Amino acid sequence: MAEILGRLARILEERKQANPEFSYVAGLYGGGLDAILQKVGEEAIETILAAKGGRAEEVIHETADLWFHTLIMLAHLELGPEDIIRELESRFGLSGLDEKAGRSGK
Amino acid sequence: MAEILGRLARILEERKQANPEFSYVAGLYGGGLDAILQKVGEEAIETILAAKGGRAEEVIHETADLWFHTLIMLAHLELGPEDIIRELESRFGLSGLDEKAGRSGK
Amino acid sequence: MAEILGRLARILEERKQANPEFSYVAGLYGGGLDAILQKVGEEAIETILAAKGGRAEEVIHETADLWFHTLIMLAHLELGPEDIIRELESRFGLSGLDEKAGRSGK
Amino acid sequence: MAEILGRLARILEERKQANPEFSYVAGLYGGGLDAILQKVGEEAIETILAAKGGRAEEVIHETADLWFHTLIMLAHLELGPEDIIRELESRFGLSGLDEKAGRSGK
Repeated sequence: MAEILGRLARILEERKQANPEFSYVAGLYGGGLDAILQKVGEEAIETILAAKGGRAEEVIHETADLWFHTLIMLAHLELGPEDIIRELESRFGLSGLDEKAGRSGK
Repeated sequence: MAEILGRLARILEERKQANPEFSYVAGLYGGGLDAILQKVGEEAIETILAAKGGRAEEVIHETADLWFHTLIMLAHLELGPEDIIRELESRFGLSGLDEKAGRSGK
Repeated sequence: MAEILGRLARILEERKQANPEFSYVAGLYGGGLDAILQKVGEEAIETILAAKGGRAEEVIHETADLWFHTLIMLAHLELGPEDIIRELESRFGLSGLDEKAGRSGK
Repeated sequence: MAEILGRLARILEERKQANPEFSYVAGLYGGGLDAILQKVGEEAIETILAAKGGRAEEVIHETADLWFHTLIMLAHLELGPEDIIRELESRFGLSGLDEKAGRSGK
């Protein structure tokens, strides 16, 4: 499932060379870190409002936006989703073969 | 990168039956939607401040926290990471026939 | 420093009758509570980023935007700045008899 | 009404010399700009959640918290509420004697 995050990260990496006029993502990179972080914050607020509104479709849409903009932030900082996944894995003891161990995790 | 998000989601589902005194996650569920959304918002702010501070380790830590709390929010709303991944896939045309192209990925 | 917040509140009250096409504030009212709260959240993020950037002029600008949009939120909820001021007064024991002590102030 | 903001600002200035162990505000100063901005962000989220919940008392409480923590931020940056009030005045043409002019303001 999360393979998609790696593919998205590669797309976001490629967009660093794209024309900001034709690519939303390249435009964000062009705005610098503050522009990207402003979007991360805005999408977090939209996610919260959608969840309070109780509309599932909107929650999915806004959470996807939030994750997407954190991926852009990570790419801008030369990080990637694999760093986040590794952190979650180590926190919850989910790495390696021992899925069983993770079942009783944190 | 694999199935970590799905496994985390299953753990979060199980925690709905856990004792709030001994499980941080069960405690959050007990606080209701507002308590969970408050945490989503706080982690977004912490992510933004870490990114502005330029400390990579902290960005990874806070982004993991942010994703983790959005997973709790999704579980609380009977949604899951597969809904978000499906949304991202359909947005970026990454599903279906070009699966193979991406298969070498992380 | 005077009565500016009260006067602003009265202006915001009047804007409830204005044409959303020609008034930014009337447009926000028309968008409903979610549109107003989205702006409150956005301005909070902008204030945080400006403060991290260390640019005084921008901090003043964004904090003014943040306060302004909380005033719109209060007006929309039939509340006003006097409610907030009264709360701050009672919290800090600044009302009542010690009025004189503070009277030399701004 | 807004005179109270000036008095609060003077209290916050005095707290810069207070013992962080006994003063919440001095503790925040001690945590530095990030600690203060984290609180500004948290209070913004709490304000938004209170407003969505439709509980007037809670909205007043959280908005007071939000304004209060922006005042701490301003004090930390050697700014004050008079800077924000002046900005709002000049934006809305409310300064001087011409209240009438302000009535048609932005």
